[in-house]
Amino acid sequence: MKTARVAYAGTVHSAVPHADGVRLADGRVLAEDAVVWLPPFDVGTVIALGLNYADHVKELAKELAVTSKDEPLVFFKGPGALLGHRGVTRRPAGVAFMHYECELAVAIGRTARRVKRADALRHVAGYTVCNDYAVRDFLENWYRPNLRVKNRDSATVLGPWLVDAADVPDPQALALRTRVNGTITQQGHTANMVNDVASLIEYLSAFMTLQAGDVILTGTPDGVVDVNVGDEVTCEIDGIGRLVNTIVADDE
Amino acid sequence: MKTARVAYAGTVHSAVPHADGVRLADGRVLAEDAVVWLPPFDVGTVIALGLNYADHVKELAKELAVTSKDEPLVFFKGPGALLGHRGVTRRPAGVAFMHYECELAVAIGRTARRVKRADALRHVAGYTVCNDYAVRDFLENWYRPNLRVKNRDSATVLGPWLVDAADVPDPQALALRTRVNGTITQQGHTANMVNDVASLIEYLSAFMTLQAGDVILTGTPDGVVDVNVGDEVTCEIDGIGRLVNTIVADDE
Repeated sequence: MKTARVAYAGTVHSAVPHADGVRLADGRVLAEDAVVWLPPFDVGTVIALGLNYADHVKELAKELAVTSKDEPLVFFKGPGALLGHRGVTRRPAGVAFMHYECELAVAIGRTARRVKRADALRHVAGYTVCNDYAVRDFLENWYRPNLRVKNRDSATVLGPWLVDAADVPDPQALALRTRVNGTITQQGHTANMVNDVASLIEYLSAFMTLQAGDVILTGTPDGVVDVNVGDEVTCEIDGIGRLVNTIVADDE
Repeated sequence: MKTARVAYAGTVHSAVPHADGVRLADGRVLAEDAVVWLPPFDVGTVIALGLNYADHVKELAKELAVTSKDEPLVFFKGPGALLGHRGVTRRPAGVAFMHYECELAVAIGRTARRVKRADALRHVAGYTVCNDYAVRDFLENWYRPNLRVKNRDSATVLGPWLVDAADVPDPQALALRTRVNGTITQQGHTANMVNDVASLIEYLSAFMTLQAGDVILTGTPDGVVDVNVGDEVTCEIDGIGRLVNTIVADDE
């Protein structure tokens, strides 16, 4: 089962896929572009992974001899960064390198505290697609990642659907790719995560309680390229969804 | 004006100081230990500062030649870390160094986006005291601060009161101190912040919108020491409040 949250005619609706777009809970069928897509569930704490695909480590940090093998590299994102499917992300004026990151997003379904790896996936409600932008111009500093790089308003796109965990037998068996204006620029596979979904839940829940609605962004493979104003960026994970986003100029 | 949020007899109440403890909005007067103190306002995003007092930089990172002078060092905390006045914080079994951090906490009162320093304090609702624990045993890694160090459940204590911004003419003119079992172990003054409150609001609001309820934890001066099971830790900021917390053994 796939569910979305969309805004239409003054209120927020739950919606499911339909051949002509989406079907609201009240039965109305609407075109995909007739609604405003929100993140597909009520999002709590957003936990993001750095350097969780070996090939991306090579791409971004090859000089640093750093991986997240010994301990996952995790940080939080703020709620102001969130955006739904078909939303627009602002590119700051004058920056040289703003890139997308296609990521499998894991929605927690029930409280997880000190969960063992073998039980971890039972705490997952479902999965969606994330496109988590970074502006690399702003240097990392002693505290990494710098929030100016990774937590700008409108930088973290989620959706379109929350796909029930029951329909995703193995979250480590998913191919993912990103297209910029239709051309594939990033390809990867969740089998190549350094820390898999179950391990991440075990790791995090050992020191912080995860709640329903919390989401884990599991990192991105290599293939990040600069995107510019007017570009349409599509992040796709097989069986999960196709998340579309457009880059616009910053408004000030 | 000072206001708290307390739980009593099945519900959450707004409360104000009273000579005999607290007075609820409905007029009842209760002893300080008859209620459960919650963080004094509905907390949104928690933004924390690293190394924002020069003396604490010296203490913690003197070998690193790092300060937050060029750019504030900021990171998020998750909501699960939050705790109210008189709460208990768990010390993990077997760790060697868990320390408190007494910090001035700034509650945002209205949306702040691209606010200039001169206007910044108009976006502040008020101030409270924070005690933000860190467990230093867990090494910092490529992403700093490591969430295992800085974001454990029950690690971030806030309260007791939200003091109206109107009653705090200058947030940079406040003396603060920490007592462990009655003995003063940390003393500082907000005049010694590397980045003052107004600068922090200008910096953050340039790339992320701050909302009412968001809180900025402005860092701690030097004088952090290890605390142990059974210790009572009191963080005090003149004119703002006296925040008490007790360390207990982890329950597993």
